[in-house]
Amino acid sequence: MNYKMMGRLNGWILTVEAVFMIPALLISLALGERASWQAFLLSIGIILAIAGMLFLLSHNATRDFYAREGLICVGTSWLLMSLLGCLPFVFSGAIPNYIDALFEMVSGFSTTGASIITDLDPIPKGILYWRSFSHWLGGMGVLVFLLAIVPVSGQSEGYTMHLLRAESPGPDVGKLVPRMRQTAAVLYLCYLGLSVLNLIFLLIGDMPLFDAVCTMFGTAGTGGFGIKNDSMAGYSAYIQIVTAVFMLLFGINFSCYYLLLLRQFRSVFRDEELRLYLGVVTATVILIGVNIYSIYGNLADTFRHSLFQVSSIITTSGFATADFDLWPSFSKAILMILMIFGACAGSTGGGLKFARVLLLMKTLRRNISQILHPQKVKLIRVNGKPVDERIVANTNAYFFAYIVIVVLSFLAISPDGFSVTTNVTAVLSCFNNIGPGLDAVGPTCNFSGFSALSKLVLTLDMLAGRLEIFPILILFNPHSWKRG
Amino acid sequence: MNYKMMGRLNGWILTVEAVFMIPALLISLALGERASWQAFLLSIGIILAIAGMLFLLSHNATRDFYAREGLICVGTSWLLMSLLGCLPFVFSGAIPNYIDALFEMVSGFSTTGASIITDLDPIPKGILYWRSFSHWLGGMGVLVFLLAIVPVSGQSEGYTMHLLRAESPGPDVGKLVPRMRQTAAVLYLCYLGLSVLNLIFLLIGDMPLFDAVCTMFGTAGTGGFGIKNDSMAGYSAYIQIVTAVFMLLFGINFSCYYLLLLRQFRSVFRDEELRLYLGVVTATVILIGVNIYSIYGNLADTFRHSLFQVSSIITTSGFATADFDLWPSFSKAILMILMIFGACAGSTGGGLKFARVLLLMKTLRRNISQILHPQKVKLIRVNGKPVDERIVANTNAYFFAYIVIVVLSFLAISPDGFSVTTNVTAVLSCFNNIGPGLDAVGPTCNFSGFSALSKLVLTLDMLAGRLEIFPILILFNPHSWKRG
Repeated sequence: MNYKMMGRLNGWILTVEAVFMIPALLISLALGERASWQAFLLSIGIILAIAGMLFLLSHNATRDFYAREGLICVGTSWLLMSLLGCLPFVFSGAIPNYIDALFEMVSGFSTTGASIITDLDPIPKGILYWRSFSHWLGGMGVLVFLLAIVPVSGQSEGYTMHLLRAESPGPDVGKLVPRMRQTAAVLYLCYLGLSVLNLIFLLIGDMPLFDAVCTMFGTAGTGGFGIKNDSMAGYSAYIQIVTAVFMLLFGINFSCYYLLLLRQFRSVFRDEELRLYLGVVTATVILIGVNIYSIYGNLADTFRHSLFQVSSIITTSGFATADFDLWPSFSKAILMILMIFGACAGSTGGGLKFARVLLLMKTLRRNISQILHPQKVKLIRVNGKPVDERIVANTNAYFFAYIVIVVLSFLAISPDGFSVTTNVTAVLSCFNNIGPGLDAVGPTCNFSGFSALSKLVLTLDMLAGRLEIFPILILFNPHSWKRG
Repeated sequence: MNYKMMGRLNGWILTVEAVFMIPALLISLALGERASWQAFLLSIGIILAIAGMLFLLSHNATRDFYAREGLICVGTSWLLMSLLGCLPFVFSGAIPNYIDALFEMVSGFSTTGASIITDLDPIPKGILYWRSFSHWLGGMGVLVFLLAIVPVSGQSEGYTMHLLRAESPGPDVGKLVPRMRQTAAVLYLCYLGLSVLNLIFLLIGDMPLFDAVCTMFGTAGTGGFGIKNDSMAGYSAYIQIVTAVFMLLFGINFSCYYLLLLRQFRSVFRDEELRLYLGVVTATVILIGVNIYSIYGNLADTFRHSLFQVSSIITTSGFATADFDLWPSFSKAILMILMIFGACAGSTGGGLKFARVLLLMKTLRRNISQILHPQKVKLIRVNGKPVDERIVANTNAYFFAYIVIVVLSFLAISPDGFSVTTNVTAVLSCFNNIGPGLDAVGPTCNFSGFSALSKLVLTLDMLAGRLEIFPILILFNPHSWKRG
């Protein structure tokens, strides 16, 4: 195990975190939020001190870096970033309890958007900014950012690849351009461009600048932290529609945007995952629309609420314009199922990802065909290309691990005594990085009622969901740490 | 497709069904239940007439019989047996509605034990007998019976194997003795012997003969139809303990009993599936016991209720001695998870089966190990023997199909407007062949409140659960019926 290289990387990541805290510090200073700017200043100091120690301890790192190192490095860096990133919440007094602050921070970085804050009105703006910005940073991944921007000397191609693979969502991470590092840069540029576009559209709708920036962070990262107690319900229909559309856009595989820039419209249009994703969105918006029409009474409102909630849940954002916990059972059932699906691979969304669902469906179809015709050997193809059997096996194992984590988390939080609906949707919501669930964790409620133990379980679920299980499983598996 | 051979087999199965209706007819006659014996007589006539027609249409069947024929044959025969087996319920007026009667019959044959009857007191005994007996017949499988007992001329080894494989529960059906037909006979003898033993133990406890026979049918088939409105709550502690222990015994792979008869204690003791099964039973009985101790206040009652409910749910029987819907959330969460596990492969129990859970856990472990050490190739071993990669792939596909069916069924029954808890547990309960769920389908409630459409969905779930998905998937897949 290359501990020195891992220490060095973690040092870099903490440095990036400290640098990204500066805007929040400046906002707090500008608005005269004394408790906040002191908290940010102290936190930046602590984080930089720890980063410095890590650099000192790892000054002559070797270049050996394999899949194991990549996975563990991603796990430790996200954990460290959350453990230290929540310090301003605690120091400022906005969230005095450390477990609660950690929950909120992981919820931010993992782009979940589940909150334990019961009233957002008294929270200082600097803190709200940092909370929302964590969505933006976590959405595309801080390692992807690091690899794209910071010139870590001695980067080998394998090293970059292992890190990118471990942090990026989806069953298979391909290169868009010949070098992995350039791929990371291309992805970040697409992300940045789309974010700016989203901000412009929000500002056109006369949204206050601070609200627009924070909403854009939550939309781009498909996070969903609101800065108002009623989430997005108080904003105009225009802003709601803009947000619904941009959530959907951020749920699409970013390589599609790169292909669009290259004018390869044909391959984007034919992408099987994209077609499935858009098909499911269309179908569920219509089904829910028909089901809730009697509540809203007119086509425009019905469509807007249906589109917004479908878009918010399927992209695992978690903003809300309506209390869907009051909707009929059928609509709630659809939303619960969308929670599992999640968005597309290579997007900022969470969940199982459509690429995996597609691959699992094709595997099942192949299996049935092989039962009927045992002599035929079939390859699984996606977008016309055969899929490596390793990825097929990996996806199946991923699916089993996914269900096991849901089941065990459900069991672990059940002693708190909430309803089955609350517990199931709390786990689905956190693990798929959505935010709201149903019943006691519905869109008008929050996670403050859970015990500290349950909050820790759900915090781990959020991390495991964002990092796609394996880095977290491997981090907590003693075998991984063996020398070799 | 060998339609003639399939017709002939279905003819045989209907004949067996008609013959097995005779005891119910005799009981009705002896007790002077006029409506019932007329109903049985008419039903037997209709079933035999249809069987006769099938024989006439298939008088010169060829011997070509493959996996496809086996799977479709199992699907059609169970469907036909249920469609006709429920006729006495309708004709006697006990369950006038045909959809309801079909639900009850499939619930019987699939050993689910979910009922739409709101009050059992006015139901004639002949009808109750047939309802409970269907558990016993469905438990080991009617085709297994047919192959073991009836000398269908021209049976080839492959033919027997394809049928046994399609009907028997578990990821892999092995031969106990050199010939498949003898294997079927051995299994049925073990089943019969254990059933008689169960009956003797119940009679020792002074249970009335009729009650004892019906309870034995429900226990042996791990079905769970009660003949009293309070299921097993009214019987003595002795009878409850006997039933709890025998449910557990019928949830064990029957090949273990054969090995015990051969005095191969070592291989039984070392069986990984058995150890996992018994370990989970012990752990959950203790966990639930600790959780519900404050309700019952003494160790004996707490242990009895905990053991009985765990045994009933894990073996997918569904008898109840307590209304566990009133238990704390943690106990309910454990029971919900046990619903998914189910019993051992090769038993009469339903659910995912411990053999599959074991195989899936080992596949996940291999996968993680391959991520860490990509160069190593590992075989999966169960009981020291390597598992064929086809069975591994099959089990993964099975698991995905399992979850897809749960999710789609949940969606399909949700328009009825019941709670999420009701809908989730109704589907889990029917699909895993258990019987009771939670909330509106809790142990003191029943399935009569669902719409006809939901009842049909749940009926299909019960069949798909008992036949382990693929026969039903293949039956309703137009590709399967293509000539070839």
